[in-house]
Amino acid sequence: MSGYAELSREELEALHGELLGRYEAFKAKGLRLDMSRGKPAADQFDLVSGLLDTVTSQSSTRAEDGADCRNYGDFDGIPECKKIFCDMLGVAPEELFVCGNSSLSVMYDAIGKMMLLGVRPGAKPWRYLDKVKFLCPAPGYDRHFAITELYGIEMIPIEMTPDGPDMDTVERLVGSDPSIKGIWCVPKYSNPQGITYSDETVRRFARMKTAADDFMIMWDNAYAVHDLYPDRRDTLLNILDECKKAGDPDRVMIFASTSKISYAGAGIAVFACSEAVMKRMKELLSFQTIGFDKLNMLRHARYFEDLDGVMRHMDKQAELLRPKFAAVLDAFDRELAGKGIAEWLAPNGGYFISLDVMDGCAGRVVRLCKEAGVVLTGAGATYPYKKDPRDRNIRVAPTYPTVPELEQAVELLCISVQLAAVEKLLAA
Amino acid sequence: MSGYAELSREELEALHGELLGRYEAFKAKGLRLDMSRGKPAADQFDLVSGLLDTVTSQSSTRAEDGADCRNYGDFDGIPECKKIFCDMLGVAPEELFVCGNSSLSVMYDAIGKMMLLGVRPGAKPWRYLDKVKFLCPAPGYDRHFAITELYGIEMIPIEMTPDGPDMDTVERLVGSDPSIKGIWCVPKYSNPQGITYSDETVRRFARMKTAADDFMIMWDNAYAVHDLYPDRRDTLLNILDECKKAGDPDRVMIFASTSKISYAGAGIAVFACSEAVMKRMKELLSFQTIGFDKLNMLRHARYFEDLDGVMRHMDKQAELLRPKFAAVLDAFDRELAGKGIAEWLAPNGGYFISLDVMDGCAGRVVRLCKEAGVVLTGAGATYPYKKDPRDRNIRVAPTYPTVPELEQAVELLCISVQLAAVEKLLAA
Repeated sequence: MSGYAELSREELEALHGELLGRYEAFKAKGLRLDMSRGKPAADQFDLVSGLLDTVTSQSSTRAEDGADCRNYGDFDGIPECKKIFCDMLGVAPEELFVCGNSSLSVMYDAIGKMMLLGVRPGAKPWRYLDKVKFLCPAPGYDRHFAITELYGIEMIPIEMTPDGPDMDTVERLVGSDPSIKGIWCVPKYSNPQGITYSDETVRRFARMKTAADDFMIMWDNAYAVHDLYPDRRDTLLNILDECKKAGDPDRVMIFASTSKISYAGAGIAVFACSEAVMKRMKELLSFQTIGFDKLNMLRHARYFEDLDGVMRHMDKQAELLRPKFAAVLDAFDRELAGKGIAEWLAPNGGYFISLDVMDGCAGRVVRLCKEAGVVLTGAGATYPYKKDPRDRNIRVAPTYPTVPELEQAVELLCISVQLAAVEKLLAA
Repeated sequence: MSGYAELSREELEALHGELLGRYEAFKAKGLRLDMSRGKPAADQFDLVSGLLDTVTSQSSTRAEDGADCRNYGDFDGIPECKKIFCDMLGVAPEELFVCGNSSLSVMYDAIGKMMLLGVRPGAKPWRYLDKVKFLCPAPGYDRHFAITELYGIEMIPIEMTPDGPDMDTVERLVGSDPSIKGIWCVPKYSNPQGITYSDETVRRFARMKTAADDFMIMWDNAYAVHDLYPDRRDTLLNILDECKKAGDPDRVMIFASTSKISYAGAGIAVFACSEAVMKRMKELLSFQTIGFDKLNMLRHARYFEDLDGVMRHMDKQAELLRPKFAAVLDAFDRELAGKGIAEWLAPNGGYFISLDVMDGCAGRVVRLCKEAGVVLTGAGATYPYKKDPRDRNIRVAPTYPTVPELEQAVELLCISVQLAAVEKLLAA
C-alpha cells in the first residue's frame, strides 16, 4: 500500500469509513486495559520468588563483614550487595552507595540536596541562584521532568538522535550558559525510545566544557542489564571512567535499581559517583538516615550471588518480555509500515517502545484509545512541561499486559493511529 | 554520706585519691564498650525472627486489598499495615502514610519539603525567607538538631520540665516571632530524659497562638509503645485530636517507626497529619517515589496482626530491657545518690537515661570514660549546636550492652562522675 499522503480524497474517505468501522467494533468489545506505566507483570516476579527464602528465621542475618543486618550499621550498604552493583556499573566500592527501594527517590533527593545544600565540592546551593536550568533530552522519562519542574528548574528540551541526545546542541548550551546546571539521561535503552548512547556521545558528555562549575549529569542507568536478546546486547561506555580520563569525575551521578530486576515495590536502589562527591553525599546522608534496609540487601545478594546471577535471571525475564515486544512491533510492521504516518525503533532492551505518529496526532490517538478502553501514557508526557512540540510521540509500555491483551490493545492503537492520520489529511 | 559540697579539702583529697585508684584499676582492665547510641541488642531482634517467615516463596504476596506487594501500587501503604499504626497513633487511615525503614529520613524529608516547596496549605517555602527558627526542647535528640542546623535553621533551646518543654516560654516565643516556624518534640519517653508530656502540655501545644501561620510541630513519637513496666505505662494525649478541637489540625506532623520494635535496620516508618497536610504531602511524595517497600509492610502486618500483637511483643522486649535499665539506675542510686553531684530520672519507658552531673563536668566525665574504654554519647550532643550551656547532661544508652557489660560501664561512669565533681570542688 502506498503512503497516505498520496491517496485521493475519495480513497481517504473510503479508508476512513473502513477504519471507523474497525474502531467501533473494537469499542463495542468493552476492553479495559491500562498500558500507561512501565509496570512489570507478575510472571516476572515469580522468577525471583526464591529471593524471599534467603533470609528467614532459620538463616543467619549477618553480612559477609559480620554486620547484623537487623541492626544499624554498614551505612553505605553490605559488601556483597555493593559488589553486584559495582560490577554492574563498573565502579569501585567506595564509589557506590546502596539505598532503599526507589532510585527515583534517590534522584529526587539528590536534586533536593543540590538545591538546598550543594553536592559537588564547593558548589553553591541552587536555592540562592536566580535561575537554574536543566537540559532534558526528549522524548524522555516523565518523572525526571516532573522533579525538575517541581523545584522550579527551567527545562530545555534536547532532541534525541539514534546515538543519544543531540550533542552539538548540548555542548553549545552548557558551554555558554552557567545557569544550566545539569542534564537528565537514561543512557541505555532510553525511556521511551530504547536508544543506547554511542561511545562518542558518552565521551562528549565526559569532555564537554561546562560554563557551570557545578554541572551534574544525572545518569539514570535504569536499564543497565535489561537486554531483550542475548545475542544483541547494547553496550554502554562507562561514564565515570570517561569523566576521570577527561579530568572531571565529579560531574556525574549514576543511578540504578532492581525495580525491574527483582521487585518493583520492594527492590534495591543505588547511586554511584566520584569519591569526592561520595564523601559529600555520605556527609549529607548521615543527617538523614542511620542506614537503609540491609535485610533486603542481604536477600538480593544471597539470591543473585553475583552479576552473572543477575544476567542469568535477566535472560529468563527477557524470554517473558520478547513475545510482548514482538506483539507490538509485529502489529506496527503489519498495520503502519510504509504508510508515511508513523515511525518507531525496535529496541534491543528496556521497557518501552516509542511511536511517533503524524504531527499533531498523538493527543487524538491517545484519546481514541482511551475512549475504546485502552489507557496509554498521556500524549506529551515524554516531554518537559508535558508539551510535545509536534504532538506526535506516544510511549507504549508492553510489559504488564498478557500477549493476547497486548495484541488487542496494539491493534486498537494501530487503528487509532491510522484513523487520526486520515482525519488529519481529510481536514487539510 | 553527706553532700560533696560539705566536705573539707582534706576529705575531698582523700576521696580523690580513692576514686583515682578505682578509676585506674578500671582502666587497667582494658574494657572496650560503645554506649554512644540507642542501639537495640540482638536478643531483642531474636524475639521477632518469625517476622522473616511471613513472606516466602510459599506465601501469597497479596495485601488484604488484593494488591500484589511485589509491584507498584498502594502508594500510602497496604491497609493491614496502616491499621496497626493508625491504632497505635490514634489517627484515621487517610491521616497516615507508611514509608521506608527510617522515620529520621521521613523527618529530614519533611523539613526539606518545608524549605523547598511548602507543606502546610498555602505556606511559602522557607528558602525564600531571610530567617527561619526552630524551638528545640533540650536535652533532646541530637539528630533532630543536626537536621535543623544543616538547613541553616536557627535553633532556640527550650528547657525541659517533668511535664515536657517549658510551655510558658514556648507560648511566649511562638506567639511573638513569626520566623519561629516549628518545634521538635519527642513527646513520649523523651530522648534522653524519658519524660512523657502531660495532658496539659499537649493541650497547650494544640491551643497556643503562633505568629507564623505555617508553624509545624514535629511530633516524633519514636517510643509510642516502648513501656518498660506493664503496670506503669505512661499515656500521651492524642495531639492531632487536640489540634482538631483547637481548630488548627494542620500544625502537627506525627512520626513513628518500628526501628525499636522490629528491626533497627529493616523496619517500617510512618507519618501522620491532618487530611489537608496529607493531601499536600501525597502530592509532593508522588514526585519522589512510586511507592515504598510493601513486602516489608506485609511481613510486619502478618507477624504482629494488630496493635495487641505489637503490645504483647513490646512487653517481651521490656523483659529484656528492664534489667539493663535497673543496672544503670541501681548503680546511680548506690554511687551517686545524696551526694549533691548528680540528678537523674527513672523513666517508665524509652531508650535512654539522662544524667545531669555537676555544672561544667559533663565533658570531663565523657572524656574520663572514653580514656578508660567506654564511649558515651558526646557531652553536649543533647543540645542544639552541641552546646550544653551548663555542660552537665550525659545521655546513657543502656540497650545494646549485656547486663554484665553495663554494670562495668556504669560503675566506671559513676566513678568518673564523682572524680570530676571532686576535681571541680578541689579547683574551686
